Amino acid sequence: MAGIQQSISTSTFLGHNKLRFRNQNVSMPGKSSGIVRCVATPSTEKTSYKTQVSRNENLAKLQAGYLFPEIGRRRSAHMLKHPDAKIISLGIGDTTEPIPEFITSAMAQRAHELSTLKGYSGYGAEQGEKQLRASIASTYYGNVGLEEEEIFVSDGAKSDISRLQVLFGSNVTIAVQDPSYPAYVDSSVIMGQTGQFQKDVEKYGNIAYMRCTPENGFFPDLSSVPRTDIIFFCSPNNPTGAAASREQLTKLVQFAKDNGSIIVYDSAYAMYICDDSPKSIFEIPGAKEVAIEVSSFSKYAGFTGVRLGWTAIPKALLYSDGFPVAKDFNRIVCTSFNGASNIAQAGGLACLSPNGFKAMMDVVGYYKENTEIIMDTFKSLGYKVYGGKNAPYVWVHFPGRSSWEVFSEILEKTHVVTTPGSGFGPGGEGFVRVSAFGHRENVVEACRRFKELYK
Amino acid sequence: MAGIQQSISTSTFLGHNKLRFRNQNVSMPGKSSGIVRCVATPSTEKTSYKTQVSRNENLAKLQAGYLFPEIGRRRSAHMLKHPDAKIISLGIGDTTEPIPEFITSAMAQRAHELSTLKGYSGYGAEQGEKQLRASIASTYYGNVGLEEEEIFVSDGAKSDISRLQVLFGSNVTIAVQDPSYPAYVDSSVIMGQTGQFQKDVEKYGNIAYMRCTPENGFFPDLSSVPRTDIIFFCSPNNPTGAAASREQLTKLVQFAKDNGSIIVYDSAYAMYICDDSPKSIFEIPGAKEVAIEVSSFSKYAGFTGVRLGWTAIPKALLYSDGFPVAKDFNRIVCTSFNGASNIAQAGGLACLSPNGFKAMMDVVGYYKENTEIIMDTFKSLGYKVYGGKNAPYVWVHFPGRSSWEVFSEILEKTHVVTTPGSGFGPGGEGFVRVSAFGHRENVVEACRRFKELYK
Repeated sequence: MAGIQQSISTSTFLGHNKLRFRNQNVSMPGKSSGIVRCVATPSTEKTSYKTQVSRNENLAKLQAGYLFPEIGRRRSAHMLKHPDAKIISLGIGDTTEPIPEFITSAMAQRAHELSTLKGYSGYGAEQGEKQLRASIASTYYGNVGLEEEEIFVSDGAKSDISRLQVLFGSNVTIAVQDPSYPAYVDSSVIMGQTGQFQKDVEKYGNIAYMRCTPENGFFPDLSSVPRTDIIFFCSPNNPTGAAASREQLTKLVQFAKDNGSIIVYDSAYAMYICDDSPKSIFEIPGAKEVAIEVSSFSKYAGFTGVRLGWTAIPKALLYSDGFPVAKDFNRIVCTSFNGASNIAQAGGLACLSPNGFKAMMDVVGYYKENTEIIMDTFKSLGYKVYGGKNAPYVWVHFPGRSSWEVFSEILEKTHVVTTPGSGFGPGGEGFVRVSAFGHRENVVEACRRFKELYK
Repeated sequence: MAGIQQSISTSTFLGHNKLRFRNQNVSMPGKSSGIVRCVATPSTEKTSYKTQVSRNENLAKLQAGYLFPEIGRRRSAHMLKHPDAKIISLGIGDTTEPIPEFITSAMAQRAHELSTLKGYSGYGAEQGEKQLRASIASTYYGNVGLEEEEIFVSDGAKSDISRLQVLFGSNVTIAVQDPSYPAYVDSSVIMGQTGQFQKDVEKYGNIAYMRCTPENGFFPDLSSVPRTDIIFFCSPNNPTGAAASREQLTKLVQFAKDNGSIIVYDSAYAMYICDDSPKSIFEIPGAKEVAIEVSSFSKYAGFTGVRLGWTAIPKALLYSDGFPVAKDFNRIVCTSFNGASNIAQAGGLACLSPNGFKAMMDVVGYYKENTEIIMDTFKSLGYKVYGGKNAPYVWVHFPGRSSWEVFSEILEKTHVVTTPGSGFGPGGEGFVRVSAFGHRENVVEACRRFKELYK
């Protein structure tokens, strides 16, 4: 099939150049493995031509690969070693349940409409379709008065975190929860906001790591946190699963205000909250003057592969010179992005209709039941477990043990993929994150194996 | 409808917080217009709270808005002024013809499959689906030996241009064709690679502008171009429509090699080439050691709204220390991106099947017929026109006149939106770009009006 494709389509596109240039340029650097990987190992090609462009020194600072591809590689290696094992992944936090048909139908319909004269549309607004922006504003921020034009639709939270780093530039300082989602730190390193990685403490220079532990209820002791320009804060938290309380977030907003900082609040798991914890930072009075919120349809509707998210930037958020942050972000979005896929946006709009919203809540509910099964399992084995209640992540403590060691032990002995806590920062050492994203039968089976291993 | 959505879905998500927090935070900064715009005007809000975060000075360097949103605003203003005018847009270069049904069916099918247990998939590879990468490699680079793992699938060329800028960082120097697609320059400014905008010459400091004029056949006099780390080069060119010849590109590759530079080659219009001009920079011997290629399905299959493109980075492309550029780009993609929408990727795969490829060629052919109509029109009016042959853009010369003045004259008198050449750089002054993306009857009607105006 691939062969047929190539012979037909290539001959059309490549045309009469094909014969003339068929044999040129076929020499490849001899030692190259042929596999592009995240791991930053030095090249072994010594005799090849080199450009005179210096490698970006910030990329050279990055340690090993981005966490999740690294876990994917370990999983693949395990599969090679145990080809017959039934591997269960509760690792990367990838959704597994089908997208409700109501929502996929809206996307399919939009796709079909694109083949009609009447339904075709080309470039959409870089900031997202007006109706979707309005719907996000009313659904998630109707109680706090955010407006349509304060919502920027994106292809997902991870992309927006990097766009926000480009917005802030290399001269800002940042703080992160420790442990936290690795994209905050890695994107900061890439933008040149940090110093070198300090192996002894497992931290990058010039980043304030706000330790979040069971002892402080996974909320940092702000009196020991230095002032930074930007504070990344994720609640419900990835990986600890802790949702900050209203009181805690009020303290955080006050802290930002006292320091003149900007909070980048990641609320990608807000729909998993089932107690009185705020679902948006903007529920806290004054937050609009100090906060940005990043969120996503990924974990609500199973859009991890469809790609759709948003960032809310209030008009009231101003730089020190009074310039609105949203205006510069709008410029970034206009220059570096061309809007989320129109088909994905049709899906997002369906998600926020009454039927779609109910369907999303059902999916969330399904994963929350998984969470309970996982929590009960580890509790019954005598482990201290955290998170889970308001988040699809269970944070299991293995006191005195290395996270990677426990990760390997679990993978080796139960064929279950988890995520080592230390991958989220030094504060995660001794913990393992177990994701509740999985088919029920796999979660149940994984828990059976956990009970076998740790009985 | 929006009201119903809000009352139902908000009440579900916002839950019991709704009553308590309904009335807080409703005050908005008084003078705010409520419209987030690209134009970088200073804020007029003097009494509001300000953070102590400094505005990114690179963003402050940017002149006015990104070109195309600016044109959109002028179009909107014109519509307000002439509510009954039948406006025809040959401006922004947005595709207008429906996506072939063969391709939308593949996307609709993928959407439907996502609602099934068997067909659901979550996070895909950040670099793109293996089959699509392989298909792009064989279709577009089968004759030059690029391999699957050298292709990075993206949500479009514009996004990838910015990701490449993040890859290179702030310490590189760049060269651009003058005129050129504004995203190269603007993303460079944002990354801090440039000096301030110099109003007298309409250029940013620290960028080498390679003048492309009818006199030099729209290929720069390389003997007068200083060495830079990066050379952005688009062929067939946006906006001039000129496709560089094999001889010219051989010179360009040699120039890059002599200087140790990296060429970022934008081939987004390659399928419009109908003569012997190379369709990929990699057709030039040695290019794999000095070039990256960025491309897109936007102008081939009408994917401007669907969002799908790719970047090809050969393994043989090395930084001065021998580190492979592709490895660092892979790290950027893994950290700052989560892959293109899986539905869009299904569409891309359909595009590259024999049926899909033929359908794309038909769409390209349609726009090429438009191009001929536009070229014939301006030629018959005595204007010198360039481009067109290998590109969907016609570059019309209005000697001695300002591009914006001609743009306004055409808009005012014919209600046709074009693009002022000077928006692409000072070298575009005196030209107007007329896009061939439009329904046939609109192109014909626009040409009738041009004949009326300039007879």
